Amino acid sequence: MQTARDPGTVRILGIDPGLRVTGFGVIDVRGRDLAYVASGVIRIPAGPLPPRLRVIHDGVSEVIAQYRPALAVAEIVFVNVNPQSTLLLGQARGAAITTLVAHGLDVREYTALQVKQAVVGHGRAAKSQVQAMVQRLLALPGVPSTDAADALACAICHAHAAALAGAAGSRGMRRGRLR
Amino acid sequence: MQTARDPGTVRILGIDPGLRVTGFGVIDVRGRDLAYVASGVIRIPAGPLPPRLRVIHDGVSEVIAQYRPALAVAEIVFVNVNPQSTLLLGQARGAAITTLVAHGLDVREYTALQVKQAVVGHGRAAKSQVQAMVQRLLALPGVPSTDAADALACAICHAHAAALAGAAGSRGMRRGRLR
Repeated sequence: MQTARDPGTVRILGIDPGLRVTGFGVIDVRGRDLAYVASGVIRIPAGPLPPRLRVIHDGVSEVIAQYRPALAVAEIVFVNVNPQSTLLLGQARGAAITTLVAHGLDVREYTALQVKQAVVGHGRAAKSQVQAMVQRLLALPGVPSTDAADALACAICHAHAAALAGAAGSRGMRRGRLR
Repeated sequence: MQTARDPGTVRILGIDPGLRVTGFGVIDVRGRDLAYVASGVIRIPAGPLPPRLRVIHDGVSEVIAQYRPALAVAEIVFVNVNPQSTLLLGQARGAAITTLVAHGLDVREYTALQVKQAVVGHGRAAKSQVQAMVQRLLALPGVPSTDAADALACAICHAHAAALAGAAGSRGMRRGRLR
């Protein structure tokens, strides 16, 4: 269901890709105001890789169709201690980002450090601190799951970066897309 | 351009994903007969990851639209000595396979060992031996590039595996898809 949105509002989709669970979070941004729209996780069953990537593709496509974000944000991941896990994560991340760009969405990337700094105020924050701050910033009634919180944190990070970049004026916002 | 195909012919698309160059190769298989259809590479410019994954998506989509394969084959990759390269390769591979499954194609995976054994006869073959055998098996006028040869080798590997699996009869073939 799509509701009419204020033209000054920008809807941002944050994605936290993983091969077992891919989190997503959607927020509406108007100037410095953030409003929670939705969040959740796509659960990927075990099995051969191609059908698993298809689950990510179909789930992300469904989120895009349902919420129609103006742009997407993903965290830049770093190599894992386990090389096999790094490869699997890379493939999941490739699936999610490919689905986003295939739908014509710009995808902005931020490091975990940038996301934590934007949401908590420092880059060494624990997962629980990110969850608590996401809950507070979006006035959620409960603590979001870690996967959903990470995805929402990505969206918040971009909203902050865009607000700072556009502090002198709202030209970027008026054109319906954050720059 | 799509030409009418014999109903007993199965068209296989082999993909060799990479973030700088993604190779592809298309063959037609009828029983034990292999016929070269096309091969080439998708070159991906440097820059931020999301647009690069989009180039892979758009290139693979174009190959699918042009040649309309019945199924696709990709090599199972292993972790690289460089973890960052492993992550990049994983993302490129995720992009290519996601594009294939998003188009409704089954994607079969084989290890490099299986591909080399199928094409050259042993798993320790050098790249130049793979290129030479692909040239010979498909009666090509010249040696294919390594990326195109690897993609064609994947397709040949699946054709051999399917021919062995269906050696007792051609039931799988008559249904228009190798099993």
